[in-house]
Amino acid sequence: MTTTQSPADSIASTVKVLAFDIFGTVVDWHGSIVREIKALYPAVDADAFALAWRAGYQPAMARVMRGEQGWTLIDDLHRGVLNEILPRFGLEHLSEAERRHLNRVWHRLDAWPDSVEGLTRLKARFTITSLSNGNIGLLTNMAKRAGLPWDCVLSAEVFKAYKPSPETYLGVARIFDLRPEQVALVATHHDDLAAARACGLRTAYVERPFELGQARPKDGAPQPGNDLHATDLNDLARMLGC
Amino acid sequence: MTTTQSPADSIASTVKVLAFDIFGTVVDWHGSIVREIKALYPAVDADAFALAWRAGYQPAMARVMRGEQGWTLIDDLHRGVLNEILPRFGLEHLSEAERRHLNRVWHRLDAWPDSVEGLTRLKARFTITSLSNGNIGLLTNMAKRAGLPWDCVLSAEVFKAYKPSPETYLGVARIFDLRPEQVALVATHHDDLAAARACGLRTAYVERPFELGQARPKDGAPQPGNDLHATDLNDLARMLGC
Repeated sequence: MTTTQSPADSIASTVKVLAFDIFGTVVDWHGSIVREIKALYPAVDADAFALAWRAGYQPAMARVMRGEQGWTLIDDLHRGVLNEILPRFGLEHLSEAERRHLNRVWHRLDAWPDSVEGLTRLKARFTITSLSNGNIGLLTNMAKRAGLPWDCVLSAEVFKAYKPSPETYLGVARIFDLRPEQVALVATHHDDLAAARACGLRTAYVERPFELGQARPKDGAPQPGNDLHATDLNDLARMLGC
Repeated sequence: MTTTQSPADSIASTVKVLAFDIFGTVVDWHGSIVREIKALYPAVDADAFALAWRAGYQPAMARVMRGEQGWTLIDDLHRGVLNEILPRFGLEHLSEAERRHLNRVWHRLDAWPDSVEGLTRLKARFTITSLSNGNIGLLTNMAKRAGLPWDCVLSAEVFKAYKPSPETYLGVARIFDLRPEQVALVATHHDDLAAARACGLRTAYVERPFELGQARPKDGAPQPGNDLHATDLNDLARMLGC
């Protein structure tokens, strides 16, 4: 008779480091930006604004990754996209100081309600780190404000490559002197998880049905390939015996 | 009548980030290595062993900085020095696994008794980060074991340059989008502080009279140029109103 280990038991016994995607997985970028825009500029369609800002982010990273632009921090990519979309929302009159303040909203994103408790539970058993395309300063300011209890703040900035480049996933293993299968990526985005899996990392999907707002629920159905599927970070902690 | 601000008031009002040297300033490398060597290899002169290991560290970094060797993590520099000194202490018989375990003692250094409380107090008012030549994995493992409550783990590894290279001090300011004078280096080594000051950072000296062991008290007399002089991290917290 063979004993088969569950994916959760296997992760609990072999994984040492949990690396977390941040935007959408740990913090609610859409809701946070909507709240800030509504407070600052009530006439603006805050939902459309948040989506437009975020939509500019992947193409901006792609330009850097194609070599059309040198290495650029996400703060600066966010600012470039912001400058582009402001006229579309009647905000072209914003001063430099107002643009700078608004751009820093990405440092002020609110955590999902379960994030601080879930991370705190997971931290008791694992080393927990961010693995985000956000820059180190952004991630540190965000963590300090939201109370995210990271052991370490890792960012695309450390690797000079954005996810889904293999350098980022393998970089976490290298930094902690571990084999890739001793690191798990936790994320709400299947493309991020698939890229980590291709590098040999373990993966945990987290449902975040309202990442794009209440009006646009995301399909959170399990997809093949991920080791774990959790409804939130407390559910992940429970699965991993934390 | 002019009102002059004390250095402590000036730092409390302008500095946003405190960057801490680690080996000697926050953790007791000498005492920790002595305790581990005494426990593992009681016949060895543990004090001499700790001093010999540490003494090989600066020359090893200098070889990298002169370009004789590519970028190297401190874990690997420590390991090279360890291999060199083992025969001198009658430990040339150590296996690969024993050498690997012993080398990781740098991840297991104990904090000075005031470090966790002092950092926790300072964290309430400032962003606190390591700024060490130790690699990120080493610093993260050390912090998790010792309970050091960093907001962020910065290392020579992020800048691909060791202190006292200006890239490290100015790198902290750049990462947090601050002017150099909005960052203060906290350290027990005057050369580190002088290099930070030359880059425009504020500086705080911390007395660590027994960094080299009880038998070898360090001269902790104030030297000109540093903004603050503290007996320990709780004293620094007190000075800064934390």
